[in-house]
Amino acid sequence: MVIVMAPEATSDNIDSIVELVATAGGAAYVTRGVSRTIIGLVGDIEQFETLGIAAMAGVSDVLRISVPYKLVSRENHGSRTVVSVAGVPIGGDTMTLIAGPCAVETPEQTLAAAMMAKSAGASLLRGGAYKPRSSPYAFQGLGEAGLQILADVREETGLPIVTEVVDAHDVELVASYADMLQIGTRNMQNFALLQAAGEAGKPVMLKRGMSSTIEEWLMAAEYIAQRGNLDIVLCERGIRTFEKATRNTLDISAVPVAQNLSHLPVIVDPSHSGGKRDLVLPLSRAAIAVGADGIIVDVHPHPETALCDGPQALVGADLEALAAMVATLPAAVGRPLTPARVPAGV
Amino acid sequence: MVIVMAPEATSDNIDSIVELVATAGGAAYVTRGVSRTIIGLVGDIEQFETLGIAAMAGVSDVLRISVPYKLVSRENHGSRTVVSVAGVPIGGDTMTLIAGPCAVETPEQTLAAAMMAKSAGASLLRGGAYKPRSSPYAFQGLGEAGLQILADVREETGLPIVTEVVDAHDVELVASYADMLQIGTRNMQNFALLQAAGEAGKPVMLKRGMSSTIEEWLMAAEYIAQRGNLDIVLCERGIRTFEKATRNTLDISAVPVAQNLSHLPVIVDPSHSGGKRDLVLPLSRAAIAVGADGIIVDVHPHPETALCDGPQALVGADLEALAAMVATLPAAVGRPLTPARVPAGV
Amino acid sequence: MVIVMAPEATSDNIDSIVELVATAGGAAYVTRGVSRTIIGLVGDIEQFETLGIAAMAGVSDVLRISVPYKLVSRENHGSRTVVSVAGVPIGGDTMTLIAGPCAVETPEQTLAAAMMAKSAGASLLRGGAYKPRSSPYAFQGLGEAGLQILADVREETGLPIVTEVVDAHDVELVASYADMLQIGTRNMQNFALLQAAGEAGKPVMLKRGMSSTIEEWLMAAEYIAQRGNLDIVLCERGIRTFEKATRNTLDISAVPVAQNLSHLPVIVDPSHSGGKRDLVLPLSRAAIAVGADGIIVDVHPHPETALCDGPQALVGADLEALAAMVATLPAAVGRPLTPARVPAGV
Amino acid sequence: MVIVMAPEATSDNIDSIVELVATAGGAAYVTRGVSRTIIGLVGDIEQFETLGIAAMAGVSDVLRISVPYKLVSRENHGSRTVVSVAGVPIGGDTMTLIAGPCAVETPEQTLAAAMMAKSAGASLLRGGAYKPRSSPYAFQGLGEAGLQILADVREETGLPIVTEVVDAHDVELVASYADMLQIGTRNMQNFALLQAAGEAGKPVMLKRGMSSTIEEWLMAAEYIAQRGNLDIVLCERGIRTFEKATRNTLDISAVPVAQNLSHLPVIVDPSHSGGKRDLVLPLSRAAIAVGADGIIVDVHPHPETALCDGPQALVGADLEALAAMVATLPAAVGRPLTPARVPAGV
Repeated sequence: MVIVMAPEATSDNIDSIVELVATAGGAAYVTRGVSRTIIGLVGDIEQFETLGIAAMAGVSDVLRISVPYKLVSRENHGSRTVVSVAGVPIGGDTMTLIAGPCAVETPEQTLAAAMMAKSAGASLLRGGAYKPRSSPYAFQGLGEAGLQILADVREETGLPIVTEVVDAHDVELVASYADMLQIGTRNMQNFALLQAAGEAGKPVMLKRGMSSTIEEWLMAAEYIAQRGNLDIVLCERGIRTFEKATRNTLDISAVPVAQNLSHLPVIVDPSHSGGKRDLVLPLSRAAIAVGADGIIVDVHPHPETALCDGPQALVGADLEALAAMVATLPAAVGRPLTPARVPAGV
Repeated sequence: MVIVMAPEATSDNIDSIVELVATAGGAAYVTRGVSRTIIGLVGDIEQFETLGIAAMAGVSDVLRISVPYKLVSRENHGSRTVVSVAGVPIGGDTMTLIAGPCAVETPEQTLAAAMMAKSAGASLLRGGAYKPRSSPYAFQGLGEAGLQILADVREETGLPIVTEVVDAHDVELVASYADMLQIGTRNMQNFALLQAAGEAGKPVMLKRGMSSTIEEWLMAAEYIAQRGNLDIVLCERGIRTFEKATRNTLDISAVPVAQNLSHLPVIVDPSHSGGKRDLVLPLSRAAIAVGADGIIVDVHPHPETALCDGPQALVGADLEALAAMVATLPAAVGRPLTPARVPAGV
Repeated sequence: MVIVMAPEATSDNIDSIVELVATAGGAAYVTRGVSRTIIGLVGDIEQFETLGIAAMAGVSDVLRISVPYKLVSRENHGSRTVVSVAGVPIGGDTMTLIAGPCAVETPEQTLAAAMMAKSAGASLLRGGAYKPRSSPYAFQGLGEAGLQILADVREETGLPIVTEVVDAHDVELVASYADMLQIGTRNMQNFALLQAAGEAGKPVMLKRGMSSTIEEWLMAAEYIAQRGNLDIVLCERGIRTFEKATRNTLDISAVPVAQNLSHLPVIVDPSHSGGKRDLVLPLSRAAIAVGADGIIVDVHPHPETALCDGPQALVGADLEALAAMVATLPAAVGRPLTPARVPAGV
Repeated sequence: MVIVMAPEATSDNIDSIVELVATAGGAAYVTRGVSRTIIGLVGDIEQFETLGIAAMAGVSDVLRISVPYKLVSRENHGSRTVVSVAGVPIGGDTMTLIAGPCAVETPEQTLAAAMMAKSAGASLLRGGAYKPRSSPYAFQGLGEAGLQILADVREETGLPIVTEVVDAHDVELVASYADMLQIGTRNMQNFALLQAAGEAGKPVMLKRGMSSTIEEWLMAAEYIAQRGNLDIVLCERGIRTFEKATRNTLDISAVPVAQNLSHLPVIVDPSHSGGKRDLVLPLSRAAIAVGADGIIVDVHPHPETALCDGPQALVGADLEALAAMVATLPAAVGRPLTPARVPAGV
């Protein structure tokens, strides 16, 4: 931690800080520059942050040097984490395709979408039973009935399921059906939900908040990790910028940056980033090439009647193009596609 | 609703849309331009949105013309709403000052802050018992013990209390103590929380999401209103931009814009916007002059030891300057300060 | 300047930096923390920046502590600057209203707008003869003919003129007509233009780039100052954000922040910020109340036929409201309106 | 063009618009909805934009439906443009690597960098003789002496040169040396420069403004095209967002979006986007996979002493990794690397 003093700070101001830090069991090293003095603190940073130094006389700025997360930091972790979702790995030597409908609507639609996903190379099925929507007048999901549909489709296809949970008090219920819990972009700082997910005993996919910094995203993951769950997958899904040609701006750099700061796998959602079907394929290629540990893609048998995000769901020729691409590009960049689990008894 | 067709759209594409809209009980008016055709739809827009038009062949764009919120819209409301918080009005002919500590820490600190607030002209007391924090290692609030402290201080000072609730399942408890529920910026799209707050029978202050558009903010208010509660106060608290000289960028224009779109009162939080003590006074003046229905300001008897946001809390000379300002500027712009309630029995 | 070393940096890495800085005539103070080491540098920062330290082995980050501008910094300047525009002050004890048409179109339109401006309390006339437009198909201004119109209207009304220059090679010509040169938002980092304006012997109004940080804005002012011209007025005109309800987001906090960092006057353009007529009055009030040294407002006798930005130009009742407001609010916040110059011979 | 009327608009308001449009030779089609009326205009949109409709009574909004650029639009162009830079193609069936030093410093440094570039697979050499810098105290480039160095290195290596021009009045001089003119991010809306570049008879690389929308970028290209030059290459180099972990946020989606809207080639600058050496390789892979027509990369023989942007310049093992990657990935996604020109007489 570095304290930057204002140009008009007095020696007394500086001495007060040095003493305070010493009292708190730390050490303060003073560097007097031509126009400003800086003070470097050594010791327990969490404790220093409670000392109110930023509000002390003569202080211009307080800079934190070390990262504020610990459990999810790469610094304190030997190797990259591979998260197992009912036996399907995310991270490691392969690139995992997750696909499925944005929302679970009917058993038929969900099964059809799952078959499409599987035929395209997906090893995990996504699908939402609880949908957080900007408008109270929009479709909010089927709830537990949707979870049951997902479970039935898993039985039929062998694909483990990833599904969103939007309220801390639904976590136990959702976890009883799901193989992986998804926390959505609007809930990235719903701390009660993060903590509940951290205690649920299932892997968690944490979408980046649409205007969260990478540091805030990792701090949100730290909330989950703190409850004892390190099976966390980070999902970049586009951030909010001034550009309106796309629904969100996919922050492709966030993949290598987050992989460098954390040991957790990082995947990309090319469907919600661009918000348009014809961007899904190029953005998927970019995600795989940049080194993402996986991608998560919307598919739907009838996008024109989808209750949620139809314009970005793949079908027909677009899905075939995705299937052809994931069969080759991941291997070409050194991480072949994660194979689907062989269902028990097959 | 206006459908913009792609330049390459065919007559068949256009006819399909016209027919679909007619089947749904609406009417479609086609305007063929030199390079593009547009189709204006008349009828039930919510129903049109379920038709999947955006995904139909030949469609380039779908523009929504009318606003997507109803209950909070100024269009459908005769007069501006005045929200009464235990008898203290927000909105109407006066400008309301809400003040208090960011977090409730001890009975003494809370009472001292409340007395400071009252002496500065505040008619409502703010203070957080539940604190959503970016870091799991930061102080998270006293919980119910904090609510009890607030209730005791209300008893002593006569100031009704505004306090944050962060989880849908705490709403009933918090509402049993609070005079007004606050929903924070990170929870603006926590829809379960919005709905619970809408059913709690207490006025709600809804802070704008730090990267929410004004339309999304009003949609979030619509979630509360839909549960039967129109006693909602909107609070602008700064948005996230590229500028880092301030903690957030106060979107001062959002006050007249939201007042023009909605009948709800709009207040400003100059403390969290700027994040620095020396910005609170100028931003408070700007908020009052722009026409805000109130301001909400952090005060603390000992900012240097505050457990939360000390650097922005007012004390001493800064608080006296605020008091002097609110005694005159609101009246100078036509809306004198809302007086504090006279406690019963006095 | 503070060097933050990576956790894996070696003692050799640290020694190399210390030696390099010593060779360059500076001093380096090392603080070894639990997980990281920081090095504080004392000496000539501009020289340190040429040493390539950021690219050296073991370096994680280089933080600049002192501000990178000098001539425009408040730190090195005794008092706030008052800029005189042909005798009309900007800065100091009064608040200056600048008004006029966005673009000079005809002598009649310009004179009518100037009379409107004067009657509303303006002491300076704005008007563009060179217009930078996003589209090559939009009106680009009258050029020198427009400058002559402005000069004629100045003769008639006594109002000194502020007008934009868009190319370094036009500066001499524009300066031969203008009392103050305006540099627009798109040219804030047109360094050749800044330097030419710095040598022109006329005061300069520097609009903030629509996505420039306050620091970059002050660095742009430093380019002008470096050529010997400190008669610079900074103009906040809104920044680009995700919010689309307004044309730009007026960064009202930038006024006190820039006034705190620099000795230069800071004014506000409420017309281009909001982009809508009904926002001009509330944003003008906010600007005056926050402490701006002036405001610059679009007026036009016939906004419906304006060749540029008609929707935001004031006329009729809106202009009367502005006139009434600037007659009282500035004085109420302690800085009465700057009076118009009394023309010579009157 | 679509006019959206306010809910309170009268029939007279609507009639006035219909008549005005008719007088201007256009046609207006009125669609009366439940709460609002919209008017679709057919005819000459550029003319309609001069009518001041947005400022007329009862008008809530004016929406432009067709794109405002023509010459660079894909709609009006049969096939994708391939730009030839002294015989080296950008666009078409191959992916072009441009590489070189950020700034020309000395003949030795430039030649060394060019040899590095060539060995990595580059077919074009980049290098700046004129450098626009945020600080007036930073290195501003060698000017014409730098151009001569570039010309000498071209002679030696056979690599055509791409170099920046920052002032309209330097265009002729720079074009007399360069094979391609580069217009930088800060000058994207320096319209005098765009027009001069359009008349220079050399291909132009137009970097996207750091906070420009894709539409504004294409409008800037239209300025060049309007002067008769369609040999334009668009270069995405990152946009400004709230995220500070990277210097800019590479908008990878801008590549397919701009390729879809325009017939011009689109390349990516992974060096300036990320601003860090270890991001160059993953972002280059992403750019190639997303379908960029080329990439432009900083290399430097001694990054630690580079006068400009050393931390992002490739050297040694990083450059070898780039060379290995461009030898295989472009071909794997269907567009092999553009070969270097065989020098005449070889």
